[in-house]
Amino acid sequence: MHFEHSQKAQDYLARVKAFMNEHIYPIENSVYAELHELNPTGDWRKWKLHPQIEALKQEAKDQGLTNLFLPDEELGKGLTCLEYAPLAEEMGRVPFSPEIFNCNAPDTGNMEVLYHFGSEQQKQQWLTPLLNGEIRSVFGMTEPDVASSDATNMAARIELDGDQVVLNGKKWWSTGLGHPNARFTIFMGLSNPENDRHAQHSMVIVPLDSAGLEIKRMLSAYGDYDAPYGHGEMHFTDVRVPTENVIMGLGKGFAIAQGRLGPGRIHHCMRAIGMAEKALELAIIRGSSRSAFGKPLIELGGNKERIAEARMAIDQARLLTLNAAWKIDAVGVKRAMTEISAIKVVVPRMLESVVDMAIQLHGGAGMCNDFPLARFAAGARALRLADGPDEVHQGMVARLELKKYASQ
Amino acid sequence: MHFEHSQKAQDYLARVKAFMNEHIYPIENSVYAELHELNPTGDWRKWKLHPQIEALKQEAKDQGLTNLFLPDEELGKGLTCLEYAPLAEEMGRVPFSPEIFNCNAPDTGNMEVLYHFGSEQQKQQWLTPLLNGEIRSVFGMTEPDVASSDATNMAARIELDGDQVVLNGKKWWSTGLGHPNARFTIFMGLSNPENDRHAQHSMVIVPLDSAGLEIKRMLSAYGDYDAPYGHGEMHFTDVRVPTENVIMGLGKGFAIAQGRLGPGRIHHCMRAIGMAEKALELAIIRGSSRSAFGKPLIELGGNKERIAEARMAIDQARLLTLNAAWKIDAVGVKRAMTEISAIKVVVPRMLESVVDMAIQLHGGAGMCNDFPLARFAAGARALRLADGPDEVHQGMVARLELKKYASQ
Amino acid sequence: MHFEHSQKAQDYLARVKAFMNEHIYPIENSVYAELHELNPTGDWRKWKLHPQIEALKQEAKDQGLTNLFLPDEELGKGLTCLEYAPLAEEMGRVPFSPEIFNCNAPDTGNMEVLYHFGSEQQKQQWLTPLLNGEIRSVFGMTEPDVASSDATNMAARIELDGDQVVLNGKKWWSTGLGHPNARFTIFMGLSNPENDRHAQHSMVIVPLDSAGLEIKRMLSAYGDYDAPYGHGEMHFTDVRVPTENVIMGLGKGFAIAQGRLGPGRIHHCMRAIGMAEKALELAIIRGSSRSAFGKPLIELGGNKERIAEARMAIDQARLLTLNAAWKIDAVGVKRAMTEISAIKVVVPRMLESVVDMAIQLHGGAGMCNDFPLARFAAGARALRLADGPDEVHQGMVARLELKKYASQ
Amino acid sequence: MHFEHSQKAQDYLARVKAFMNEHIYPIENSVYAELHELNPTGDWRKWKLHPQIEALKQEAKDQGLTNLFLPDEELGKGLTCLEYAPLAEEMGRVPFSPEIFNCNAPDTGNMEVLYHFGSEQQKQQWLTPLLNGEIRSVFGMTEPDVASSDATNMAARIELDGDQVVLNGKKWWSTGLGHPNARFTIFMGLSNPENDRHAQHSMVIVPLDSAGLEIKRMLSAYGDYDAPYGHGEMHFTDVRVPTENVIMGLGKGFAIAQGRLGPGRIHHCMRAIGMAEKALELAIIRGSSRSAFGKPLIELGGNKERIAEARMAIDQARLLTLNAAWKIDAVGVKRAMTEISAIKVVVPRMLESVVDMAIQLHGGAGMCNDFPLARFAAGARALRLADGPDEVHQGMVARLELKKYASQ
Repeated sequence: MHFEHSQKAQDYLARVKAFMNEHIYPIENSVYAELHELNPTGDWRKWKLHPQIEALKQEAKDQGLTNLFLPDEELGKGLTCLEYAPLAEEMGRVPFSPEIFNCNAPDTGNMEVLYHFGSEQQKQQWLTPLLNGEIRSVFGMTEPDVASSDATNMAARIELDGDQVVLNGKKWWSTGLGHPNARFTIFMGLSNPENDRHAQHSMVIVPLDSAGLEIKRMLSAYGDYDAPYGHGEMHFTDVRVPTENVIMGLGKGFAIAQGRLGPGRIHHCMRAIGMAEKALELAIIRGSSRSAFGKPLIELGGNKERIAEARMAIDQARLLTLNAAWKIDAVGVKRAMTEISAIKVVVPRMLESVVDMAIQLHGGAGMCNDFPLARFAAGARALRLADGPDEVHQGMVARLELKKYASQ
Repeated sequence: MHFEHSQKAQDYLARVKAFMNEHIYPIENSVYAELHELNPTGDWRKWKLHPQIEALKQEAKDQGLTNLFLPDEELGKGLTCLEYAPLAEEMGRVPFSPEIFNCNAPDTGNMEVLYHFGSEQQKQQWLTPLLNGEIRSVFGMTEPDVASSDATNMAARIELDGDQVVLNGKKWWSTGLGHPNARFTIFMGLSNPENDRHAQHSMVIVPLDSAGLEIKRMLSAYGDYDAPYGHGEMHFTDVRVPTENVIMGLGKGFAIAQGRLGPGRIHHCMRAIGMAEKALELAIIRGSSRSAFGKPLIELGGNKERIAEARMAIDQARLLTLNAAWKIDAVGVKRAMTEISAIKVVVPRMLESVVDMAIQLHGGAGMCNDFPLARFAAGARALRLADGPDEVHQGMVARLELKKYASQ
Repeated sequence: MHFEHSQKAQDYLARVKAFMNEHIYPIENSVYAELHELNPTGDWRKWKLHPQIEALKQEAKDQGLTNLFLPDEELGKGLTCLEYAPLAEEMGRVPFSPEIFNCNAPDTGNMEVLYHFGSEQQKQQWLTPLLNGEIRSVFGMTEPDVASSDATNMAARIELDGDQVVLNGKKWWSTGLGHPNARFTIFMGLSNPENDRHAQHSMVIVPLDSAGLEIKRMLSAYGDYDAPYGHGEMHFTDVRVPTENVIMGLGKGFAIAQGRLGPGRIHHCMRAIGMAEKALELAIIRGSSRSAFGKPLIELGGNKERIAEARMAIDQARLLTLNAAWKIDAVGVKRAMTEISAIKVVVPRMLESVVDMAIQLHGGAGMCNDFPLARFAAGARALRLADGPDEVHQGMVARLELKKYASQ
Repeated sequence: MHFEHSQKAQDYLARVKAFMNEHIYPIENSVYAELHELNPTGDWRKWKLHPQIEALKQEAKDQGLTNLFLPDEELGKGLTCLEYAPLAEEMGRVPFSPEIFNCNAPDTGNMEVLYHFGSEQQKQQWLTPLLNGEIRSVFGMTEPDVASSDATNMAARIELDGDQVVLNGKKWWSTGLGHPNARFTIFMGLSNPENDRHAQHSMVIVPLDSAGLEIKRMLSAYGDYDAPYGHGEMHFTDVRVPTENVIMGLGKGFAIAQGRLGPGRIHHCMRAIGMAEKALELAIIRGSSRSAFGKPLIELGGNKERIAEARMAIDQARLLTLNAAWKIDAVGVKRAMTEISAIKVVVPRMLESVVDMAIQLHGGAGMCNDFPLARFAAGARALRLADGPDEVHQGMVARLELKKYASQ
């Protein structure tokens, strides 16, 4: 047991940090403000990327700093899940930076799905442009009309009709749907109700310009549309795509989903940890630079205790996440279910509490867009629901814990 | 000691409930949605009222249901703070309803200031149209460049120059500044630095169209501009108003503020309790109507325990607030400082936690504008900072508690 | 609605406070220490009362300050549940004082049972000496071999055999069983399994010297035997008592229990609130009189925030309890179930947290018997289990809450 | 970075587990009960060891399983702090087991002090019999009359008088003082008030039979005397020992203390983690074997969520502790202060909450001595004060965190 990252991870971390120091932190605040001016409303049809993004994407690519999440030596950089973790943390500090490193969700998850389970044709058509950062993608799982916490509630249907599949249903909270470059969604639906519970669903690649696919609206999360990414609602009415667009085969939906979610949760959680570190940093800086009642805010009342609590909570959450990443690398997702579910509960909650403390130290400034804190808070809250609510993951952890004593 | 509201309070409550049942609940959801369509951006110059508001204001007036907050028998309805409390709770359930009853903050506080401390001329010019619902007003206290949690940090200046006062400084988080009918602000600033600590500040009435007063922007709170009310930033550069606009006299700012804040906190807190009840109601209805893993959500895991926790927290917070209201009525604000500070800490925190539970039970739907929950959450969070952060109020409660033992 | 106690309650409170000031507070610390020396082990056969208790009981009786809990004008003082509440709070500050006022659990509950439901003979034989403070009693409900949180799990049996009932089973956590004056227990058991779920059990009066009744041991609660009261385990093997000892009739157990528990919970909770006030007082005095790092402890870090939290939590818990008492008086136990269950959850938890804070401010001294804090902590913890664990009461509150929406 | 223990640690863990399975778990419950019968009172003069302890100590010694904590290859087993950690966790599950492995506090800390800083003579006279398990020792730091959270408050004095030092003062909460084999204490006091703040104190070895050293009493922690170990109060009145008994030299007290505390905290925390695992295990077994309302307790309400919370909290606390151990090994105590203080806050709190949950699932049984849970609870509570209260450690973590930004 030891607690230092591999040399390779440390090297990449230094390079990512250098890139962020040079290219991203200097424009961080202006990008937030300008993005908001560019995209003042929830009308995604008018949304634009920030003008500096494409050049920075190219710069990152030139420096060999894209697709770091992908363990493949050629398509990515051959980093393990554990080695990528600190890079994701660093990127998490600035929410628009993952796009620059071509490591943004849900594209990363979609790329992993295509990489591991896609056909050659699917890879060529969809994975390659994703890896190149030319297009973006979304994932359609959650549905508005059922409790999606139970994935078997999924009501969207996939029907085979000759060499096509016909898709019907509604999906929402599809992140990235408002992005100008979004080109396809992976659609998950019920295709084989006659099968066992976890072999009834399938995943299908659906171009966003398919007939019958309507983008109804973008959803605000705590008042924020998160432009130009957005979280959208899509309605599918007799949407037809060729059967070649089915990934792996009908009935393989849950098998793919399980593989997809493990590393994805590490990424989400490590980015959240980066946000928490950023929030703690902002809290200390603000608390040290403003005074009330004759003292810097940070010296008043329980503020230092809260700083300590934040440090301790972050460190615990990070270690739990790194341990989960290590376990995924070492024994695979299926045998790391406790760890993967645990971080999903622990990390967003930790982020919520650290950000809340930071906002409190900022006063009104913490709630508005002068700082990224309200955005982090909304992100943390959303993360307690995304990919399954806390309660589902607590249920998983408990079930596995009880199993240990099942024979007693 | 007994725990039933007076007959008068019960009668008014029945009438307010009837009004809300007939006129407000039926349009609640459409108003939220339409308001958002009317006012999609943070550009307050274009903000509009919802088209039904003025007619409803008239209807409430016709039914004798406006200005219920004002204890005056003629200008208001002669209700005590304690008697008004349940009415404020009922109104709190629908955030746009206080305007209809002409009981919206910060107008209520401003009307109280003018009622108790204003000159005849000030009353005629500003109180009368406020009571008539013809204009709206804002309050300028918090400043962007200092830690406003310590009110003596206030840096805005008021200088006497002949028969005028000259105002300089910045104010932000001035709620209602974006409203099309907003006509004046009460401006608080440092006028008499030579005086004792609590006699250095003054309050001045400033028409919003005064030369030198610039509305810089509306601030989003958790991504929400709260249109058409808004929370604004104002810059004052050599703004001149006649000395008649000074309220009560120079140096009386804190004396007025203290009187203003007591009942105002009861109102804020009771409205927050109304939001919490609404959130609990939504949680139960949603949790009972959607199922996962073969059961209504509400029956799963710890959900019922959380419903119970919400009920217990709301009931405690309400009793604490009613007790504070009673104490204000019975012995005055100055001798109810523990109670007034306590509710300011307890109630927003309670609301945050009840709303968080309700959102969790709604899943993604809870975060978007399909329900008022995210709005309630942002409101609760803001309330933990508005009128002094939690920590300042905890400090007040502690100080008064320690005083009891000072001689030991 | 108003928040002042009746004149009668205020008068009795003044008299109880005067009595405690004169007779109890001065010996408080020595009694704790001496009790411990008198009763150093868990061997209840050797337990003795503190030598001053009987004289103080007589003094309280002479002053007309006994049996205050009993609403009867003649046998008690005709105080309502709400009027008795502040007296119970005052007594709670010193755990041995309720015995002096003849208001100690479980005798109070047993006296209420006999008062409301006992036959004339039962009253004469058992209620009269209890009211006179000549004997003490216990209550046998909880059982060691089943989850007693579900009262219908109760496995102890009551069988009718001619003019006798025959009792078998085990009971534990029978408080007061170690007391030298304990003379009888009320035994609750399954007598009518053929009846409806809440008509299957009965309560029977059983003298402690009955053949077949064995006192197995006293149980320590967090290492403390709570001598000379104790919490005992009793085994019943074919214990025979005449049918006249059955209270109200066979099958009436739950009906009696429900009536018994309401006021009893008010008493428990108000005493707990008294303990919390005492703990807060001790915390402030200790924190103000010891220094570290150049300041009184109370001024360090978040300590004042914690004082404020304690004040706010106590005040909320007290109002909730007073409201429950008022509701019992006004509409009866059955219609106050939410309130009665709520205080059972809220108050012990509040006491735990206030005491924990006080102990932390005392350092090591807080954990040992130099202060009553560890005793309060154990009492608070026990109260979260006694009379039903928190979870059962949360369940009750939730069930009643959901019922409000059952038709929607 | 990887998360598997070294082969050596795994081997020792297997051997310790085997020893505990064979020799300790089978007698666990009877030892608790018998210890209590052997030592029913707080009169430490009569305390006896459990009769099986000495034989088990010999067996552990024969198996090469003693002194595992000591990194020395010859005197211990050459295990690093990180390698010893899982062994301490295993031992923690049964509170009397560390004595059997000769790894009990405060002897371990005292042995480390003597090993690192003792003279040859001191080692021969005191370290050797400690390593052999022939004697036991205590540590005198905390004082009854000052706030010991600030170590510079220490009022006990050490005066040089020729070739002797003269000791005066009071110490309390000296763990192990009641043990029949306790032979000496390390006494810390103020010897050089003229020096810098952290060079004023010294540590001196004092035989317990020294003239002028009076053992006043054993202190109960939550009613428990923790016999035959005990937590004692000692008064020193002109106690004289030769200057050879000073460790390292006058003024070196804090230097020694700092070195002593680092590994000691790892040990304490890992044992606490072992207790938490044991408590979780008991909770699951009890919750699965008892039923209420027609279901196993564990399936009711939020119980499974609480099991999950326990698992997640334990895993985080363990990783934090292991990381701290690794850092001590890698860079030394001085550069691991954040980590060492963090675990001191996090772990006892975690243990408290896990044990509380387990007690709640056990009902009344959880509070009495039928299970070790109340003992664990008291231990957890004490650990929040021992070696510095939480607040002092939060202060340390905060101070180091703020330092990172000191130049900004």
